[in-house]
Amino acid sequence: MTEFDLIYKLLNTQSQQRNDVLTGIGDDCAILSVPENHSLAVSMDTLVAGVHFPESASAYSVGYKSLAVNLSDLASAGATPAWITLSLTMPAADEDWIKEFVRGIFTLADEYNVQLIGGDTCKGSLSISIQAHGFVKKAMLRSGAKAGNLIYVSETLGDAALGLKSYHGDSAVDTTCIRQFNEPEPRVKLGLLINNVATSCIDISDGLISDITHICKQSLCGADIYLNKIPLSAAYRQYYNNKPDIMQALSFGDDYELCFTIDKSNKQHIDKISRETGINLTCIGTISTQSNVRCFNQYNEVVDITKRGFEHFNG
Amino acid sequence: MTEFDLIYKLLNTQSQQRNDVLTGIGDDCAILSVPENHSLAVSMDTLVAGVHFPESASAYSVGYKSLAVNLSDLASAGATPAWITLSLTMPAADEDWIKEFVRGIFTLADEYNVQLIGGDTCKGSLSISIQAHGFVKKAMLRSGAKAGNLIYVSETLGDAALGLKSYHGDSAVDTTCIRQFNEPEPRVKLGLLINNVATSCIDISDGLISDITHICKQSLCGADIYLNKIPLSAAYRQYYNNKPDIMQALSFGDDYELCFTIDKSNKQHIDKISRETGINLTCIGTISTQSNVRCFNQYNEVVDITKRGFEHFNG
Repeated sequence: MTEFDLIYKLLNTQSQQRNDVLTGIGDDCAILSVPENHSLAVSMDTLVAGVHFPESASAYSVGYKSLAVNLSDLASAGATPAWITLSLTMPAADEDWIKEFVRGIFTLADEYNVQLIGGDTCKGSLSISIQAHGFVKKAMLRSGAKAGNLIYVSETLGDAALGLKSYHGDSAVDTTCIRQFNEPEPRVKLGLLINNVATSCIDISDGLISDITHICKQSLCGADIYLNKIPLSAAYRQYYNNKPDIMQALSFGDDYELCFTIDKSNKQHIDKISRETGINLTCIGTISTQSNVRCFNQYNEVVDITKRGFEHFNG
Repeated sequence: MTEFDLIYKLLNTQSQQRNDVLTGIGDDCAILSVPENHSLAVSMDTLVAGVHFPESASAYSVGYKSLAVNLSDLASAGATPAWITLSLTMPAADEDWIKEFVRGIFTLADEYNVQLIGGDTCKGSLSISIQAHGFVKKAMLRSGAKAGNLIYVSETLGDAALGLKSYHGDSAVDTTCIRQFNEPEPRVKLGLLINNVATSCIDISDGLISDITHICKQSLCGADIYLNKIPLSAAYRQYYNNKPDIMQALSFGDDYELCFTIDKSNKQHIDKISRETGINLTCIGTISTQSNVRCFNQYNEVVDITKRGFEHFNG
């Protein structure tokens, strides 16, 4: 058995098998059936070792997170996940590493009824490309926000930023933050629930300010953000002795929470979704007629935002 | 403008715009419409610099070939290409390189009415993942070959193997072979035409023997190949002074010709397709009840095949 055969064999061990996969791994193409009256939602993200995850991250985490970030994109469109393809590039076929990597992917995939339908494996420096496919009747986009809309985020921001510090030897970081960095929970169920009320939606990968800017650009509007409303976890506050680093929480990214906008009339509906799912949903500001994103402190003064979110190629 | 913005801008320059792309580049997901009564065919291939193409290959060729190998997979399923996603990982955002790379992709994409609908760009060693999406009513698979079927290949084999030699300083290689290596023509139109008669199909990427072995494994059969029938180009014969390296032509791969099987009763239909398209289609053997691939020389003696096709991770 060649190393290539080994990887192929490991990728074929998924228990999850869907009826809409007519031909899966093992032919030139996967052949798939999209349900009637649904559109196909497609997202592709690549994670490079040393850029998107620490070289020392566990294989399980790398697998889990590679899928999570793609499911998060489907979540922000309000789509139901279905299939993934995987391109795995690695320096050498390390059986133990691949087994753990595959376990990380399949753990999350099985949870969301997602089947691996194909992919490619190559020799090279470690990177993972996953493309996720889902179904949606009407997708949430970045482009539907309107002046006066309320801006919400799910759960808390900044925890993943703290989680990364643990890789730099910081032992004061709470395990919940490390987990948030390694294995973020894609907000798929939330995306489905808010789909009929949200006017726009994005997942927070680049940092709230960067991502809300994407919404503003596509929706031709501005946003007023109230910094004292930004939801921070107890672990985050405690790490900073209750003087939390707000800028980091706004700009680091890697949160994979949803940021979405709604008409004010739907506020109670959002509160109800929050109660029923147990997912905290916090109103952090409003969409404005300005053309920019403004942040206000507790004295209602505009705070200059100079630090931008994570960008690839930023050296 | 950041480097990331630059790439994003360049990828947004495609003139080809399809009606079935509801949302393209610029949102978390692309939102797409698959035509009724059609399945979705999906293929993903990754090309790594120094493994799948020479480091010195032109950016145009790298772009062109990255797409061609994926369209070739759709061709072997008999699918009509529609959309692609692109993940581009490169050490630094070199504007000139990216422009040429994008030109290579878009030249071929426009020819086949294919739209780039999304992707990702990352910093890292040069590699390209493309996923191609197409539509098909009934896909050709590797699994339908039956004993007695005739085995065909399109055009000639081995030219790409010669083409690679030019990168190693061999000036005797004909330009047609270099072009075959750099910019193989995906056999999309041929795939559509043979779809209703071929019992199985594969594109020759790993080398004929490797690829026919895939058909045999999936179809639970064997194959008898007649070496004197293997179609070789005039340039290939001339390079070897009419003593052509048959093993190389059988095992190097990178040909991206189609290998397919038909019932004998459809031979005339295949001849007609060949005449009408101008694509040479050569019968090179028959599917057998054996469990292996046997090669016969002109004296009808079995020739031992020890050299296998290209495999990733083969060091």
